[in-house]
Amino acid sequence: MSVAREFETANKHYAASFKKGDLPLPPARKVAIVACMDARLDPARALGLEEGDAHVIRNAGGRVSDALRSIVISQQLLGTREIIIVHHTDCGMLTFTDDDIRGKIRKELNQDADHIAFLPFTDLRQSVLDDIRFLKGSELVLNVPVTGYKYEVESGKIVKVE
Amino acid sequence: MSVAREFETANKHYAASFKKGDLPLPPARKVAIVACMDARLDPARALGLEEGDAHVIRNAGGRVSDALRSIVISQQLLGTREIIIVHHTDCGMLTFTDDDIRGKIRKELNQDADHIAFLPFTDLRQSVLDDIRFLKGSELVLNVPVTGYKYEVESGKIVKVE
Repeated sequence: MSVAREFETANKHYAASFKKGDLPLPPARKVAIVACMDARLDPARALGLEEGDAHVIRNAGGRVSDALRSIVISQQLLGTREIIIVHHTDCGMLTFTDDDIRGKIRKELNQDADHIAFLPFTDLRQSVLDDIRFLKGSELVLNVPVTGYKYEVESGKIVKVE
Repeated sequence: MSVAREFETANKHYAASFKKGDLPLPPARKVAIVACMDARLDPARALGLEEGDAHVIRNAGGRVSDALRSIVISQQLLGTREIIIVHHTDCGMLTFTDDDIRGKIRKELNQDADHIAFLPFTDLRQSVLDDIRFLKGSELVLNVPVTGYKYEVESGKIVKVE
């Protein structure tokens, strides 16, 4: 059975007891979270989110530069006024360089990916600080509170970086 | 209290009963989900995900073109071999055009955002179909099963588009 079919089955259970059909579009807690796509991180469970609470933007590494389009839409059209960044221990982004992945793509797919910045990093704490700086320096992002965390996949804890 | 502080409090409860500290980095179910950042959609609860199961990539609209960097990393470095797309009813992306948001940014932030494609859409079903086509046509994406759904924020149900 494909994973899609398994998701359809799981969703029947979710929908059967669903009672949140009248939530408004703008996030109730006026916050946008930018987190890594990592399978071990569940932002809703780890941060206590209910449906309707927060925008959750996720990508490889939880990099804000790759989330800019979504952050601008979140702030300009849907009223969020706080940003939370969540990177994490044992992140895949710590394991490769742009040259590594571009070489792999050239070799295995026979394609050129030199135009893509894959945004890996070598220091977890620094990647959070870099992303806070990026937001603070962007003319397209409102001057709102930004808090950065590293999530420990070993313990389930968030640790504040800044 | 800022939302960040509330998240820290909620996380203490999560971490206190956390028992999943030894999960491997690659997603167990070998799937990458691309879903909208919308606050009302919780992919883990709606699709029955446990920590460790799946990459969850989220952005405004759940647009795959804006998720390409993450999809390539997911497939090339972390072994996912299926893609699920989840767009949803009452999406904010149905409510504006590139000209609208660029005009708002020019007026309120005095900035030029003409270089950003905000990727709004006018038809929910078509946006899912367009994103499936994008993946099928991309030389950087492996030829893997792709299934697209619309999530009904009113009912909690996913409805298969293709």
